[in-house]
Amino acid sequence: RSPPSSLPPPPRNSRLNSMATEAQAQWVLTATGRSPTNIAVIKYWGKRDEALILPVNDSISVTLDPDHLSATTTVAASPAFPSDRMWLNGKEIALSGGRFQSCLREIRKRARDVEDEKRGIKIKKEDWEKLHVHIASYNNFPTAAGLASSAAGFACLVFTLGKLMNVNEDYGELSSIARQGSGSACRSIYGGFVKWCMGKSDDGSDSMAVQLVDESHWDDLVIIIAVVSSKQKETSSTSGMRDTVETSPLLQYRAQTVVPGRILKMEEAIKNRDFESFARLTCADSNQFHAVCLDTSPPIFYMNDTSHRIISLVEKWNHSEGTPQVAYTFDAGPNAVLIARNRKTAALLLQRLLYCFPPQENNLDRCV
Amino acid sequence: RSPPSSLPPPPRNSRLNSMATEAQAQWVLTATGRSPTNIAVIKYWGKRDEALILPVNDSISVTLDPDHLSATTTVAASPAFPSDRMWLNGKEIALSGGRFQSCLREIRKRARDVEDEKRGIKIKKEDWEKLHVHIASYNNFPTAAGLASSAAGFACLVFTLGKLMNVNEDYGELSSIARQGSGSACRSIYGGFVKWCMGKSDDGSDSMAVQLVDESHWDDLVIIIAVVSSKQKETSSTSGMRDTVETSPLLQYRAQTVVPGRILKMEEAIKNRDFESFARLTCADSNQFHAVCLDTSPPIFYMNDTSHRIISLVEKWNHSEGTPQVAYTFDAGPNAVLIARNRKTAALLLQRLLYCFPPQENNLDRCV
Repeated sequence: RSPPSSLPPPPRNSRLNSMATEAQAQWVLTATGRSPTNIAVIKYWGKRDEALILPVNDSISVTLDPDHLSATTTVAASPAFPSDRMWLNGKEIALSGGRFQSCLREIRKRARDVEDEKRGIKIKKEDWEKLHVHIASYNNFPTAAGLASSAAGFACLVFTLGKLMNVNEDYGELSSIARQGSGSACRSIYGGFVKWCMGKSDDGSDSMAVQLVDESHWDDLVIIIAVVSSKQKETSSTSGMRDTVETSPLLQYRAQTVVPGRILKMEEAIKNRDFESFARLTCADSNQFHAVCLDTSPPIFYMNDTSHRIISLVEKWNHSEGTPQVAYTFDAGPNAVLIARNRKTAALLLQRLLYCFPPQENNLDRCV
Repeated sequence: RSPPSSLPPPPRNSRLNSMATEAQAQWVLTATGRSPTNIAVIKYWGKRDEALILPVNDSISVTLDPDHLSATTTVAASPAFPSDRMWLNGKEIALSGGRFQSCLREIRKRARDVEDEKRGIKIKKEDWEKLHVHIASYNNFPTAAGLASSAAGFACLVFTLGKLMNVNEDYGELSSIARQGSGSACRSIYGGFVKWCMGKSDDGSDSMAVQLVDESHWDDLVIIIAVVSSKQKETSSTSGMRDTVETSPLLQYRAQTVVPGRILKMEEAIKNRDFESFARLTCADSNQFHAVCLDTSPPIFYMNDTSHRIISLVEKWNHSEGTPQVAYTFDAGPNAVLIARNRKTAALLLQRLLYCFPPQENNLDRCV
């Protein structure tokens, strides 16, 4: 099976190269891919299975333009590599974590024969089990600052490894593998608006992403990311959501009772390009996600005073216009993701942000 | 009925005076009282009846020492007064609000004959309907900064008016009248730990405070209030809780499912002077109250970065000690109420606070 041709291939600049080394026996086969990050508008927070990364509720996200926030990954295989290794933003990181191992294992399982006739390289399906890989990944935006760097990273890793190993699964299957690297990564496999269906089965086989609409469906929207802090967050999403599941009395109610209704309304709003409903749902769900973080023991604070001021600015503006012009959403960090209804609103928003938060003096008291 | 003698009279410095004026016909009769504020450890947030001020859940508070945070109120009645008037902290405020009128009406209804033989003043029960009052109230702490100034204020108003008008109701009845001024005021009628029973009846007659234990029961506890900001809050409790009731999907679940269990556990913890349970419940319930504020549309933020840092300081300390030493709770403002298990811990806490938040340089980055 190959991906349905109507789906845009999100890692846009994918290529498969083979590089000649001194001895032909020591060949290196490489593939490079790029995956955009995605921003949830109905949030994923809480797992029902830690190992398989199965969520407690469905979530919906919008995939960003890969030209802006994305991960670029090159994977290489060679008989000369004695072990699997990985570099993130130029710094070697341990590949021993279960998440990398899950993705590598699942892709290797599906690897097929690869042949480069010109260079005389022939890799049989079963050879992939013995071949080690080197992985180099770069994010063109701050890592672990609540901007879903792991979503882009794991989506790209799975997609690029799949390319290298000539894997022929459809996007749904790839999303399910990426999910085992980082839950939200499954949504970065598609462009446009994407739903991660939580699934019901214990083995996670039905927990995967589906594309709701492609990126051309609602292309008026403009997303502005206000980087409040590029410091790495104090509480990782993984440990944060584990603590929330274990200690927040409100989380299960949110997951079981509030979110299912919001998912239906959000799908409807996206289908109809109904910005008012879209904005109200997006803001409410961002706030509810941070509410369950606060209901965690000890409490988790991802937003700071600057985040609050940005919310206040948007709420006041939307209120004064009578109908929402801008939606805000915050992930596991203080940075604001602002979604403007069109380019004109986006320009006004940028003006207001720069007026209220002038880059030089950092004077936060001018507006809100 | 008079208050049961085992209960301490919380407005400690109550006195009934009559002042001679130039013409004996123009007499002025006065009474002065003082009421402490109270701090909820299981929070009141949300009304089921706006006019009668009936809450969506029970709450539990601790009444502070009146020497520290309290309201002092003098009420005066005279045939020379053409209308009811009130001054708060020396500034005249409108008495037209329904809340003042409710308290005045309910106390006047229960007024009895008053006689000052020496001065020849005789007020019949029915005369009180025609006599106007002047009320002067002072808080010895910031007003409307989330330190329950209205709780102390209305408790004191009701108590002192009751004294002036020779009202003979028991404390439960007075608490129910104070409740109609400001919900949490009903809890300031008693010292020690106090429970406001939400009640079931539509007319609010069973929505009143009861004392759980008096102030001698757990006198090891030391309460430190860290005033982060003495600015008046942006969102009043009244409009804030109305918005939460109307828009937060999580509030009803909190009120109906989470709080009833916490009330039972908190009563048990107080009875047994079990600081560990007391601290865990207090912190969790403060955080959940702020979580439902955040789940409100538009979201309400009462805590700021400094509040978050104080929480972080306390959580880290408690964690490193293995068992809680200090509980924190925040009302509708950024100020921290810190409850230390004993005087020694309180001294250490003060030291840490002063080290992390030195009063002069206002350098918040030294610790957390």
